[in-house]
Parts: sequence; C-alpha cells; structure tokens
Amino acid sequence: MQTLETPTLMPAPKTAPPSKHRVVIVGGGFGGLYAAQQLGRATHIEVTLIDKRNFHLFQPLLYQVATGGLSPGDIASPLRGVLSQQKNTQVLMGEVTDIDPNGRTVTLKDNSTLPYDTLIVATGMSHFYFGRDDWADIAPGLKTVEDALEMRRRIFEAFEAAEKTSDPEEQRALLTFVIVGAGPTGVELAGALAELAYHTLKPDFRQIDTTATRILLVEGMERVLPPFPAELSARAQQDLEKMGVEICTKTLVTDIQGHQITLRQGDALTTLQAATVLWAAGVRDPGMGGILAERTGVERDRAGRVIVSDDLSISAYPNIFVVGDLAHFAHQGERPLPGVAPVAMQEGKYVAKLIQKRLQNQTLPKFDYKDPGSLAVIGRNAAVVNFPKMKLTGFPAWFVWLFIHIFFLIEFDNKLIVMTQWATNYITRKQGARLITNSPD
Amino acid sequence: MQTLETPTLMPAPKTAPPSKHRVVIVGGGFGGLYAAQQLGRATHIEVTLIDKRNFHLFQPLLYQVATGGLSPGDIASPLRGVLSQQKNTQVLMGEVTDIDPNGRTVTLKDNSTLPYDTLIVATGMSHFYFGRDDWADIAPGLKTVEDALEMRRRIFEAFEAAEKTSDPEEQRALLTFVIVGAGPTGVELAGALAELAYHTLKPDFRQIDTTATRILLVEGMERVLPPFPAELSARAQQDLEKMGVEICTKTLVTDIQGHQITLRQGDALTTLQAATVLWAAGVRDPGMGGILAERTGVERDRAGRVIVSDDLSISAYPNIFVVGDLAHFAHQGERPLPGVAPVAMQEGKYVAKLIQKRLQNQTLPKFDYKDPGSLAVIGRNAAVVNFPKMKLTGFPAWFVWLFIHIFFLIEFDNKLIVMTQWATNYITRKQGARLITNSPD
Repeated sequence: MQTLETPTLMPAPKTAPPSKHRVVIVGGGFGGLYAAQQLGRATHIEVTLIDKRNFHLFQPLLYQVATGGLSPGDIASPLRGVLSQQKNTQVLMGEVTDIDPNGRTVTLKDNSTLPYDTLIVATGMSHFYFGRDDWADIAPGLKTVEDALEMRRRIFEAFEAAEKTSDPEEQRALLTFVIVGAGPTGVELAGALAELAYHTLKPDFRQIDTTATRILLVEGMERVLPPFPAELSARAQQDLEKMGVEICTKTLVTDIQGHQITLRQGDALTTLQAATVLWAAGVRDPGMGGILAERTGVERDRAGRVIVSDDLSISAYPNIFVVGDLAHFAHQGERPLPGVAPVAMQEGKYVAKLIQKRLQNQTLPKFDYKDPGSLAVIGRNAAVVNFPKMKLTGFPAWFVWLFIHIFFLIEFDNKLIVMTQWATNYITRKQGARLITNSPD
Repeated sequence: MQTLETPTLMPAPKTAPPSKHRVVIVGGGFGGLYAAQQLGRATHIEVTLIDKRNFHLFQPLLYQVATGGLSPGDIASPLRGVLSQQKNTQVLMGEVTDIDPNGRTVTLKDNSTLPYDTLIVATGMSHFYFGRDDWADIAPGLKTVEDALEMRRRIFEAFEAAEKTSDPEEQRALLTFVIVGAGPTGVELAGALAELAYHTLKPDFRQIDTTATRILLVEGMERVLPPFPAELSARAQQDLEKMGVEICTKTLVTDIQGHQITLRQGDALTTLQAATVLWAAGVRDPGMGGILAERTGVERDRAGRVIVSDDLSISAYPNIFVVGDLAHFAHQGERPLPGVAPVAMQEGKYVAKLIQKRLQNQTLPKFDYKDPGSLAVIGRNAAVVNFPKMKLTGFPAWFVWLFIHIFFLIEFDNKLIVMTQWATNYITRKQGARLITNSPD
C-alpha cells in the first residue's frame, strides 16, 4: 500500500548525497524533449530522458507517412543525436513500468530502477476505440511510425487489390475509404487521400479508375475541425468537398465487421462496404496515467488524463510533473488544454524553468498557455489557420502551414529533406514514398 | 510431366487472337525495369511487369538504409509511378508461382494465370548461408527493405543494450560486429559501421565509448573485393584498416551460436563473442530458377542460376529469357557475368531490343557485355573504382561513386532527396535515419 505523504523538495537522504539535482523525464515527444532542451545548460542538474523509442517523432506530419508523401526517417530525429551536445543529459532507451513517488524511483521493464529528485511524465496518449478495442485490427490509428506504415500498407494494398479483382462489388469496397474523426488528423488524412486517389494514382492504374474512389470523413460532432471557429470549419468542409471528400457530420460508427461499416446519423442507420477504415478519433491514457493515479492518488479525467495543478505538478507530489497530452490542465478554469504540440512544448519548457527556479529557492507564476493559434492542412494550396488576431484560408493558410511545420521540425537535415520532398511532391504530384512494406504474409 | 517441345515464335492459337505481342516480365529490379522501359514505346507490344513488391529498389544503396544513412523511401520508386507514362505497360503486384512454357502462361499465387508470347524472368537471387539456413535468424542478409530495417534495428539496439548493461563482457560482445563476406556489400557495410561507431555515435552515449567498437570483416577468399584488381583490393583493405575495421581474409565461419561465432583460418579455430553478425556472403536462387529448370529442362549452375544461351534465352524455349542475377551468362567463354546492376541493365535492354527485332523478322548479334567498370565505396572520401581504362582510389573514386549512384537512381525526387541527405550526413556526420522500428516485442 502506498501512503500519500507530501514529500519535501530536499533530496532523499543518502550515504553519499549526489551533488546534482536529478531530473528524470519519461517520454521524448514534444513535452519531454522541450523540457530536456530547456534543462540542457542548467548546471547542478543531471537530466535523464527515458523513451521506449530511440527517436523523437514529429507527429503532426505522421499522416504524410501514412499516405506515402514522406518517409519515417524524414520526420524522426534520434533522441541521442538531438541531445548529444547537452553534457548534463543522458538518454535511456527503455519503458517505465512503475513509479515509487515516496522512494523517488522509476522502475524500468528490465526491473532496473532509477532514482530521481524531480520527475517529468510526458508519455502522451494513445488512440481509443470508445470501448471497441476489437476494432483496432480493422481500423488502425495513427500514433507511431509502425501505425503509419500499417496505414500506408493498407491504403496502397487496397488500390492494388482493386486493380486485380474482376468482381465490381469487391472493387467498389476496395475503393471506399472511411476516416473516422474529423479533427486535424482526420481532415489531413482525408485531404491527402483525395490528392492520392484523384491525382497521384490516376495515371498509374490500367483496370481501375482511381478517381472513382470514395473517401468518407465521419465526425460525431456537428462540424469538421470542432475546436476551430465555425467559419474555418465551414471553409475546411467546403475545400474538402471540392476535393471530392464526402463529409458525414453528427455521425457515429456503430459497427465494423470485415468490410462492412455501419454508421448512425440521428436515428438513421447506414451500412456501407469499405475495405479500409482509418481511425482518427478518441484518445486515452496508454497506462502511465493509471500508474500515477494508483501510486500518488492523483485524480484523472474520463479519458485518463492526469489532472495537474496550476504549476503542472501533481497536488500531493510537487516534485512530479505531468506535461503534454497526458496532462489535464484546466486553463483559466475553462476546458482542458487540447492535446497539440504547442501546449506540450510550452508545458515542457515551463516545468524546466520552474525546476531551475526552485533550486534557487524561487518560484514561477502559474502556467499560462499562450495560444499561438491552430492550423490544419486540407490539401494542395488549402489549409485553415486560426491565429489569435487573424484567420487564414486557402493558399496563404497553406503557405503558413508549410513554413511553421518546417520551422518546428527538430533537426536541420529533417527540415531540408522535408522541404525537398515537398517541393518534388508538389511539382510532380508523385508522392515518392508510397511503398508497401511489412506485409503480414 | 512436361514435354520439351521447341515452340515457334507464333502466338499460341486463340479464338480471338490478340493483335499485340504480349511480353510478361517477372521482377522489377534493374533487369526487369530496364527491359520494361526499353519496350515502353514499342507499338504492337503489350507489356505486363509482375513484382511481389510495388516498388523498384535501388539495391546498391541498401547498405545505407541498414546503417541509418538513408530511409527506404529514398531509394525505392513505386513501379507504377515509374512506368505510368508507358501506355502499353501494366504493372501487376503479385508472385509468380509457376510457369507453363508450352501453354505459355504464368501462374500467380492467387491461382490466376496470365498468357504471354514472350517471357522475361528477372527475379534475382536471395542470400545463401552455405547450407546453414539456421543462421538466417542470427545473421540477417541484405536483399529487401525489411532486411535492411532488421539490420538497422539490430545495429542500433546493440549500442543501446551496451549502454545499459553493467557486465563488461556482455558489453564487449554487444560492441563487436562481424560482417561475413567482403564483396562490395560487406565492404560498404563495414565502412558505414566504422563511420557510425567511430564518429556519428561517439558524442551520443554516456556510459560506453563507441570508439571501442570492434568491426570484423570476414572473407573466405585471400583478399577483400575479390573480383577487383589486386591493387584496388589492397587499397580498400588499407582504407578499411585505417578506419578501424579488422580484416580476416582466408577465413570461414564454421559456427554461430547465440553471441558466439567460430571462425576458421587455415587449421586455426577462433571463437569470439559478437552480438551482431551481418551476412553479406553467398547467393542462391530463391525458387524461380528451380521452377524454370523443372518446367523447361534448362540447366543451372551450382548456385541455381539458369544457364542461358548467347541471346539470354533458354535453349529449348527461345521465347523465354532470363536476365539479371538469376542468369548465368558465360561471357566470352569465361566466368559467368557477376550479379551487379550494370549487367542486369544491359541484359534487360538487350532482350527488349531483341524482342522488337524478332517481331520485324530480324535478329540481333549475341549479347555482349560492355563492362563499364566496377566500384565500391569504403567510407567518407574513400572508394575504389575500376574503370576499363582507369583505376581510381580515395577522394576521386568516392566522388565518382557518388555521382554514378545519383545518376542511376530511378526517379528525380530520389536523386534530390539522396543528394540532400548525403550532403547533411557529410557535413553533420549525424546519419538522420537511425531509427529502431518494428521491434519484435
């Protein structure tokens, strides 16, 4: 049983007390990486960044890997490489399986333990099938490189199978794609798929007409891009429809069986044949939130996010912070901050600064999110951008979207490669990375 | 039972005879793709290119995927995209499982059959463990994208595991890499691994000194790059040793058990602990040669290559050609041509031209390989080039190597991306694509 003592910020007594304050960061996404970078020049601090993977993944562009526009290597940066110049930082590839908030250690999958003075948990969220985990095999989500390659394989195998079959009904099912969820990821997937089917692949096939492909974007709320202002949602819907995407709002998926998907709009049930269902709806805690709750007693929201204090720490344990998608931060008493990169980056940086202040016996004002705006790309020359003081659509929005994504890519070589690949994709419309790899047989 | 009738070049009688001559090409490597491209503008010819994969793979650069320098997408080109402008050509993703040389059909894995008037078999070779197929799991070879990603995973996981372990003996084994076979692939792998261990990864680890890595290059023949002139082999060996690679010539692998590998040099047996063994020795027919032999009675060499006539056809079936690595062509009565890209390219083009000549009731002189020379890269600023009239080493050879590889990359976007990636890799020495993906657990 765990007791919920409030620990002090003094390091636990040791026979040979470490001279440096040990910060352990779990997760190398935007939150964890930005925290680590912010701590990079802090003397008196030793940083250990733990991640299951050996790379940081630039998730906002993962949909382009899934649709053959970019390669995984283009949007991933080896964590060791990114942090190699930070002499106070070490990277550990491993999976944290437990936390002892009183003993101040984390336990790794290989049963080794690692002591910390301050812990930053930045493990993110995984996708959620609203209780229908059996859909995971039918409708892959998009969180990891492997997810993206699985989507890519399914998309391009569907076209290959359609080219081969002589059964018109099967062909129609193979050329029907359903994307569930019209947040930024769903919208971006739908747009990229439309570009593929209606342009890139059109000259490549001989038996099928890829422009006959149906792309359905299904959303439970009343409009696409629900968190955006209504006029931008309307414009996005208009742009998508112009590209050939069919949009079904206020629509829920009630069943998926093989190639058959059942949708419910109000009381009306529709069944359609679709060989490929892509999942871009719902997130949930992949496990770390549960471990934290069990060990510290912290409260969580319905999705499993950890409810954090004003300074992103856990109420009973001021030396444990949660940042990024896993954190539920009630901004100005309103809805929790969304699970997007700018939130994670600002949270990571804030916590890193707060740790340094505390070591000087100072503190920081509570975390205040500066919303830089949000943006989603729809397709060639089409995007929506919601800046605090400006709304953009069409080509200007698209151009801003490109610029911002290049700017925030972590490494210089990624920036160059992605720019080069985008330039050729834009000119040739060929999407050079549409490989089918890792087939199950 | 098959009877070995000599077929004529007239299409098999049909109720509605096709107006066009049907060429079926099996395999989209260099041989098959160059044949297809050569036939692209031939009127009166219908081309079907069948490949198990949906992309052409530029195999000479696969070792760079295995060592994290390039992404698979950088060196792969979707076959449909490459051939989309050839209106007489269709691409079929599928695996040929049988050939009926008298009925003139190929059978695919899905049991469909495809008729042909002329058949070009260009399926290549797979790696061979000299009868020790049980080594395949321990010592991955390098033929496919999946092979390269598996090598990449093992290489980078070895460094990660070495960083974590506190057992010095295990650490030494994890930092010992054995490459079996010192042909171009083995030499290029050894050089790239040396660059990784002694430069790229050096600043990235905190517990291990990656410059203590041992890289052994094991070769059964008396020198590295056996097909090259002796002075170039000597220079390559010298360059490799300067980079830190240990070279064991006249050495055979006699056993691999877990992390223990046994080498035999003359009568002396040596056992060493190495966690990572990479296989770059030996090729054999992956199956299509056997099918051809069984169905047509054609002879094969010890590795399973199909012995072809002067015009690259099979003696009893002048309308079946074998090109590329699977073909054993006794050039000017000497040793068979090596399994390299220029041979496959020239063979593919020759057969395509011959088919067109035959349709005009003409013929071509027998196939004559014009050796453009051979080249192998060793590392940064180091390569060996053996042109017919010139031998190059060091920086000039390296520069020529770069230029030729960019030149022969199939698509424009691949050329640009590879140039960009190489430029940043050269400047930063970072090797941006060193991701660990598809872990078995």
